[in-house]
Amino acid sequence: MSVPIRVCLVGGGRAGKVHANSLVNHVPGGELVGIVDASPQALQDTGDQFGVEARFETLEAALDGLEFDAVVITTPTFVHKALAVAAAEGGKHVFLEKPMALSIAECDEIMAAAERSGVVLQIGFMRRFAPEFVAAFERIQAGVIGRPMLIKSLSHGPGLPPPWAHDLKKSNGLLAEVNSHDWDCVRWLMGSNPERVYSEVANFKGAARGVTAENFYDNALVNIRFESGGLGSISGVCPCDYGYDGRVEIVGELGIMQIGEMQGQSVVVCTDRQHGLVTPIFRSWAERFEWGYIREMEGFIHAIQTDTPPRVGGEDGRWAVAGALAGTRSFLEERPVYLSEIFDAGWTPA
Amino acid sequence: MSVPIRVCLVGGGRAGKVHANSLVNHVPGGELVGIVDASPQALQDTGDQFGVEARFETLEAALDGLEFDAVVITTPTFVHKALAVAAAEGGKHVFLEKPMALSIAECDEIMAAAERSGVVLQIGFMRRFAPEFVAAFERIQAGVIGRPMLIKSLSHGPGLPPPWAHDLKKSNGLLAEVNSHDWDCVRWLMGSNPERVYSEVANFKGAARGVTAENFYDNALVNIRFESGGLGSISGVCPCDYGYDGRVEIVGELGIMQIGEMQGQSVVVCTDRQHGLVTPIFRSWAERFEWGYIREMEGFIHAIQTDTPPRVGGEDGRWAVAGALAGTRSFLEERPVYLSEIFDAGWTPA
Amino acid sequence: MSVPIRVCLVGGGRAGKVHANSLVNHVPGGELVGIVDASPQALQDTGDQFGVEARFETLEAALDGLEFDAVVITTPTFVHKALAVAAAEGGKHVFLEKPMALSIAECDEIMAAAERSGVVLQIGFMRRFAPEFVAAFERIQAGVIGRPMLIKSLSHGPGLPPPWAHDLKKSNGLLAEVNSHDWDCVRWLMGSNPERVYSEVANFKGAARGVTAENFYDNALVNIRFESGGLGSISGVCPCDYGYDGRVEIVGELGIMQIGEMQGQSVVVCTDRQHGLVTPIFRSWAERFEWGYIREMEGFIHAIQTDTPPRVGGEDGRWAVAGALAGTRSFLEERPVYLSEIFDAGWTPA
Amino acid sequence: MSVPIRVCLVGGGRAGKVHANSLVNHVPGGELVGIVDASPQALQDTGDQFGVEARFETLEAALDGLEFDAVVITTPTFVHKALAVAAAEGGKHVFLEKPMALSIAECDEIMAAAERSGVVLQIGFMRRFAPEFVAAFERIQAGVIGRPMLIKSLSHGPGLPPPWAHDLKKSNGLLAEVNSHDWDCVRWLMGSNPERVYSEVANFKGAARGVTAENFYDNALVNIRFESGGLGSISGVCPCDYGYDGRVEIVGELGIMQIGEMQGQSVVVCTDRQHGLVTPIFRSWAERFEWGYIREMEGFIHAIQTDTPPRVGGEDGRWAVAGALAGTRSFLEERPVYLSEIFDAGWTPA
Repeated sequence: MSVPIRVCLVGGGRAGKVHANSLVNHVPGGELVGIVDASPQALQDTGDQFGVEARFETLEAALDGLEFDAVVITTPTFVHKALAVAAAEGGKHVFLEKPMALSIAECDEIMAAAERSGVVLQIGFMRRFAPEFVAAFERIQAGVIGRPMLIKSLSHGPGLPPPWAHDLKKSNGLLAEVNSHDWDCVRWLMGSNPERVYSEVANFKGAARGVTAENFYDNALVNIRFESGGLGSISGVCPCDYGYDGRVEIVGELGIMQIGEMQGQSVVVCTDRQHGLVTPIFRSWAERFEWGYIREMEGFIHAIQTDTPPRVGGEDGRWAVAGALAGTRSFLEERPVYLSEIFDAGWTPA
Repeated sequence: MSVPIRVCLVGGGRAGKVHANSLVNHVPGGELVGIVDASPQALQDTGDQFGVEARFETLEAALDGLEFDAVVITTPTFVHKALAVAAAEGGKHVFLEKPMALSIAECDEIMAAAERSGVVLQIGFMRRFAPEFVAAFERIQAGVIGRPMLIKSLSHGPGLPPPWAHDLKKSNGLLAEVNSHDWDCVRWLMGSNPERVYSEVANFKGAARGVTAENFYDNALVNIRFESGGLGSISGVCPCDYGYDGRVEIVGELGIMQIGEMQGQSVVVCTDRQHGLVTPIFRSWAERFEWGYIREMEGFIHAIQTDTPPRVGGEDGRWAVAGALAGTRSFLEERPVYLSEIFDAGWTPA
Repeated sequence: MSVPIRVCLVGGGRAGKVHANSLVNHVPGGELVGIVDASPQALQDTGDQFGVEARFETLEAALDGLEFDAVVITTPTFVHKALAVAAAEGGKHVFLEKPMALSIAECDEIMAAAERSGVVLQIGFMRRFAPEFVAAFERIQAGVIGRPMLIKSLSHGPGLPPPWAHDLKKSNGLLAEVNSHDWDCVRWLMGSNPERVYSEVANFKGAARGVTAENFYDNALVNIRFESGGLGSISGVCPCDYGYDGRVEIVGELGIMQIGEMQGQSVVVCTDRQHGLVTPIFRSWAERFEWGYIREMEGFIHAIQTDTPPRVGGEDGRWAVAGALAGTRSFLEERPVYLSEIFDAGWTPA
Repeated sequence: MSVPIRVCLVGGGRAGKVHANSLVNHVPGGELVGIVDASPQALQDTGDQFGVEARFETLEAALDGLEFDAVVITTPTFVHKALAVAAAEGGKHVFLEKPMALSIAECDEIMAAAERSGVVLQIGFMRRFAPEFVAAFERIQAGVIGRPMLIKSLSHGPGLPPPWAHDLKKSNGLLAEVNSHDWDCVRWLMGSNPERVYSEVANFKGAARGVTAENFYDNALVNIRFESGGLGSISGVCPCDYGYDGRVEIVGELGIMQIGEMQGQSVVVCTDRQHGLVTPIFRSWAERFEWGYIREMEGFIHAIQTDTPPRVGGEDGRWAVAGALAGTRSFLEERPVYLSEIFDAGWTPA
């Protein structure tokens, strides 16, 4: 066995705990050696839960006071760039949660820092590691459904995002915070980059839940034309309340493929013939992508240990950021937007 | 178009209405011209509902007062033999609901009468006509799953049967009234006769619902050895309350086949992530076998019009009666019972 | 029983045979008394198959030579207006297949003629009568999923449409010929009219199958904003080859509902563990909407007999035409198009 | 974190590798420190694969030469007793694969040894730890389906068992080797002990695959009466070839529950409308119960660390052995057999 990779977790919230669980319980090649969080409460909770003694309020302090090889960054998006660059410059491998950053310029800075330091940079697109997505990708690559023509990907999440994510200036909204996974996986599965996008958004439940941010929306529907000539759609609903729902459907010249389902556990019950059959739904993203989260952390550790490129890197994260920005610009300007307009002009809603 | 076959319905209850609906709305080759029921209320209800003026309290009266070609008999089992024989002797084609009769001797009388008169005798095994069962049978015949080794068939019905069916002396109980379909379809799909059976029964809900009949049971589980060497199981639950459930699973040397499902309509709803996905179940046998009931009546009319044997006849009905009797004897005598013991000795529980 | 409504079928092709089957076998209130088709071969085939002696090469000839109450029009779209107007002016009730017509102006002419003559005008949107769609609609109306926010409807058909339907000037293409059902059912289920649409189209298989028509496309993806603020998407793929696929998914403030499925029959087979479970798909629209086609014809006959408005009429057909036109204009002009632009200007691609 | 429990694996075959994988990759509380296997090849393969240097040809040698806390025994059944007793007497906690042993007497010896030494004894019934089974059990306990009336459990395995398992004298056959899980889980989920059983067996594929053992069978169907009055059925097919299939269906006074499914991954593909939808099946027990195997090893380690009884212990293993013996005696003697006959007389087929 190789020497374990020493990992410092930056961000001890929900996503942080999911990765901590992977490192502590399911990825023996990685060792969780420190936690960074600005909140003393989060530090204590997550540190205690995973038995990690080295706790820091800033990444800077951790870089100074702890020996480690890699960071897993799960903070709010608006600090991704600063943290990822600092870690890379400190010679640490970087696992960075989605969305990669707020702008193309930030993505470029992160990628440049990682390249300069020669560290691994992996983006948190766990669908790329989820067993059913991996199997689907391989079968598409093998030509099972022929040349892809049409793809639909959805991410519907149960609860209202945190306040900072309501504000387009801090987060690029639902199209980035929730639909980053869709932007990445439609590009991955279609085997082609998006060329132009058109989006419509709606706000149904925001006001009732006290959201007052300008341009807030809780429903989004995006229409994509790919460079290949293929078509795509992305939908986002958050809060959808009914569960966590992430599914993809893809039609190729030879047939159709459906990836994922809503059913969260194979237990079916019927006790009332007027009501009908009841079966669990996935209640959260952590349940839905249980193996995806484990496998992506294995993948990160493996890339470090073998000095090979990660399965999903900065370029992929940058495309997802560009998609979210193009989608945002489209609904603000009520017109189709080319990805080139985003890359060229460095457009952001801020 | 041929001249429609004139049909007199004998028994205007729930099953009678299902067949009346087929004849009136979906089988133009048949014409419902009369109704027989000892209950004036049933006569009026069913007659009014289907616009049939000729109404009789006895089959005898109908045979005297109405011109018709065929009967559809849906009365309680204990009068099947008398009615079927009278109809056949009156030269009428006979569609006879399951179970065919109470004993092998009665079955023999019915078959003899039909043969003497040269009339069609079809038993109400609608699974033989249900599209998914027909497709399954054809695929088994084509060798898709290889030689059948193991079959399981279940019929779980929602409500308590009528009082006469609680009494083993009048009905042969649930193994006949509910599981007749299973006895027929395991023999049909396995392509082999049952050789010996062992059954266990239980009574969970009877007393609570006021059933005091001796030897009443509301759950039955039968183990079958077929002449082919294959194995089978039949289960019956009535009342099961949760819906109407009729499914078959068959394993052959090359693979498995499942026929039927609980889902009654392709509408899935989720509004509560703790509760999960909800989809309708079939609530009644009439819903579950909607096309089966139409197609079996088409088949009956077709057999008459073309003077060809029906798809499922007296011999099939007789085997199902024998199975129910063997199953009954098995649980009463707590031992495996050979079908030959039933055929040879004319055994009945009465 | 009422006197049967005498129906003359105009168009003896595939759709004509589906309606003929409903009338002859499943809708006793309707009587198929004549067939009109310009093709002698179709006349003979369909006439012989359904035992109809009165056969005409033109509707005019039928109006002159046959007594009847209603027409069922299943011809190519470009003659819908002339036939529907002639039938209505002849005092015949009109069942008109989708798409209603080629333009808003044609729709208006048809509706005016029907109104002048006081005849029933029903459009062939069988989803409105399909049991699972009816159940879904009722549950949405009852508030089960709350206020609708997002709907997706798809129609993927197996085979290449006939040559006249490749030409935007004769047919409005796939968005009309295939997706008419989606345009209608998203409006129906959302309970709101579309306000603006954006569409992308693609052409993957056309050339390989010899289609040379300008602007031909075989994939379409439409983004819709409804007057209610809700969002919608429609997808069309034709030929998709893999089967007939028509499904809807709708998200409301309280939850999600899925209507329809791909599985065409509840038979599951597995004979190879590397290949997996196999279950039939619906192979054609006639299989997929078997009960929908029967129920819509019952509905038409019922509307005539009871002198009540049909469940889906000219106004509904007109909205679906407007949607298809807006979608067409959108991809031609590469911009979102308001429905008002279509209604106001009488825009057509011709 | 507690000090890891040092585990020596006894039996380096397929089941051994599954547990090794759990210990090495997913159960940080356990440490795989040694491997015992009589086959040098297995020792090398499994040792190399999991990086374990301490390798022994006998448990005795390991007990002498290695410090460890617990054994995981995955050898053929006929050596279970000797190994488990030796380990327990050596003060090692024992995880023992199913079936526990060949006879009630052997089970009693194992349990006595464990009790004397005060070590944990856990039996390898991973269904008790599989998430969907755990959820189902909890819901049954909570009364969701009411008092259980009828249960059916099946285990169909793809490949022919090893030669020693063909011989009733060495293995108790398929009813023990494959259906141990069913014997345990019907008792667990019904909350009642089996009282008498009746079984039928068949041999369809054995001869063709070169099995010549007397009384060999590859299909089994068991009928169970529980002490509660409830009914049960167990089916076993091995080799079934089509996949690994383990499902349970249970009917209570209030409703039905289905646990498990055949679908092995949520990827559905359709490329041929005549063939239909294709979705993966579970190909092996390791795939089917992926989490069950991890969770049972966590449970074993947890029981050791907290000095608490394991979730499934010797008494449970003994009941499953008794069931298999009763089922065996039933088909040999062609009569229902009471469990008391097995416990009292120490009956074995040998």
